[in-house]
Amino acid sequence: MAKQPDLDDFLVPYFDDGKKNGHFSLDDFDPKAKPFSSGSKDADRARLSEIGLLLDNLQERLHAQRKRRMLLVLQGMDTSGKDGTIRAVFHEVDPLGLRIVPFKAPTPVELAHDFLWRVHSQTPAAGELAIFNRSHYEDLLVPTVQGEIDAEAFLQRCRHIRQFEEMLACSGTAILKCMLHISKDEQRTRLQARIDDPLKHWKFDVSDIEARKQWNVYQSAYRDALAATSTEYAPWYVIPADSKTHRNVMIAELLLRTLDALKLEYPPAKESLKGIKVE
Amino acid sequence: MAKQPDLDDFLVPYFDDGKKNGHFSLDDFDPKAKPFSSGSKDADRARLSEIGLLLDNLQERLHAQRKRRMLLVLQGMDTSGKDGTIRAVFHEVDPLGLRIVPFKAPTPVELAHDFLWRVHSQTPAAGELAIFNRSHYEDLLVPTVQGEIDAEAFLQRCRHIRQFEEMLACSGTAILKCMLHISKDEQRTRLQARIDDPLKHWKFDVSDIEARKQWNVYQSAYRDALAATSTEYAPWYVIPADSKTHRNVMIAELLLRTLDALKLEYPPAKESLKGIKVE
Repeated sequence: MAKQPDLDDFLVPYFDDGKKNGHFSLDDFDPKAKPFSSGSKDADRARLSEIGLLLDNLQERLHAQRKRRMLLVLQGMDTSGKDGTIRAVFHEVDPLGLRIVPFKAPTPVELAHDFLWRVHSQTPAAGELAIFNRSHYEDLLVPTVQGEIDAEAFLQRCRHIRQFEEMLACSGTAILKCMLHISKDEQRTRLQARIDDPLKHWKFDVSDIEARKQWNVYQSAYRDALAATSTEYAPWYVIPADSKTHRNVMIAELLLRTLDALKLEYPPAKESLKGIKVE
Repeated sequence: MAKQPDLDDFLVPYFDDGKKNGHFSLDDFDPKAKPFSSGSKDADRARLSEIGLLLDNLQERLHAQRKRRMLLVLQGMDTSGKDGTIRAVFHEVDPLGLRIVPFKAPTPVELAHDFLWRVHSQTPAAGELAIFNRSHYEDLLVPTVQGEIDAEAFLQRCRHIRQFEEMLACSGTAILKCMLHISKDEQRTRLQARIDDPLKHWKFDVSDIEARKQWNVYQSAYRDALAATSTEYAPWYVIPADSKTHRNVMIAELLLRTLDALKLEYPPAKESLKGIKVE
């Protein structure tokens, strides 16, 4: 009998302060794999709807309780499906309870501050579920690939990220980080589709081609970044993402498990409301 | 010959991670002392004007260079003179280059985030000189005195503050923290003056009387907070502050020394401007 897939098989080993973390290579994860797929697209979509309804209820409890905060970080190469994930996974969730924060290239005002400044201001408040569509990890990966920061500065930023995320966790924020892992082949297909369809041109920028030329450098930077910032309070998961359905189901399952673990309950009934008749 | 006073005699010993820091007690500092006073109020005011002009020039260099950031944190009991310090020390400095940020009791939105959220958003940008009139230290001191956080949570916040300030320092922020140290007697005089003069009523709140009743608890919380957060990158100084003139001169001298150490220079002349005649 084949081993049942376990979400934690895709967990990046935790970084142990000062110690070398366990072996971790992105090459060990096949972007084409579909371990959390049932084998049928229809069944996968049904499961996704089912989880969606559960997430909607959990989000309402989170909001009603106003104690905990939830932060989902989505990272991945161009076309890896960050936007598509948000559309698919949160389809059933009340948009009122969501805060979706896209991070683009930093503005001059953002660059005039430390790299966590723009990110900290967007972290979820009590009762909020925030989704970072790209994140502070861009400010680690992009300057590294472009040679703007050296290895020492890279490790320093990783340390500042760990401390920042630990502080958020201490103040009640559950953090889940997903790296949408696609193959270089799949990216070619998706980029070409954006070029060939005029209605998709708005999704395409020539800089995407430049970034693609740096594929291996980016993969290596991702590896180092994930290894140095996966922690018990803010774990990284590698999501095989060549299959969109699989990617969606797996991220939905991870989020469901994370929210379930918070044991979110509605606040206790108010005795003072007992027997009150509205006239 | 009497020993010349040294600013570093008023430096709170640095916190060494994991180790017990050197002996430090606020009782060792006499609030009535005037070590940096010349003995003549007129001479002190002349010195303050002199430093003010130097600070104005240093601020212009900071702004022109747009690399470094300067953060001055002012803390102290009610009536210790935070507002008066800003007025006196920055009298000569171009207001355009200053950002003065007062922190009051946290709003519901601020309380829905971690305690550093509101503070991080107000940190100085490159080229800015920011003055925190009260600060994140209020969110350490007030909940402690009011028994809302326990000793463990207190130490955790201290650690988060050290890490946060270290991150700011790594990104180019010079940090100077001054605790305006007044005596309980002097506070009585100043509070009474606020009560007796209707034009000063706006400065007075009955909660000031409540806080005064907790004087010893506050002093003890201040001691612990300063001892746990004075670091090489964000040092605390105790400012004897019963004398307003002395307080102003001492803080001005400290700020002057801090900005001097940054070796701020105007950006290099632009070769491209050589010989250009404006028509």
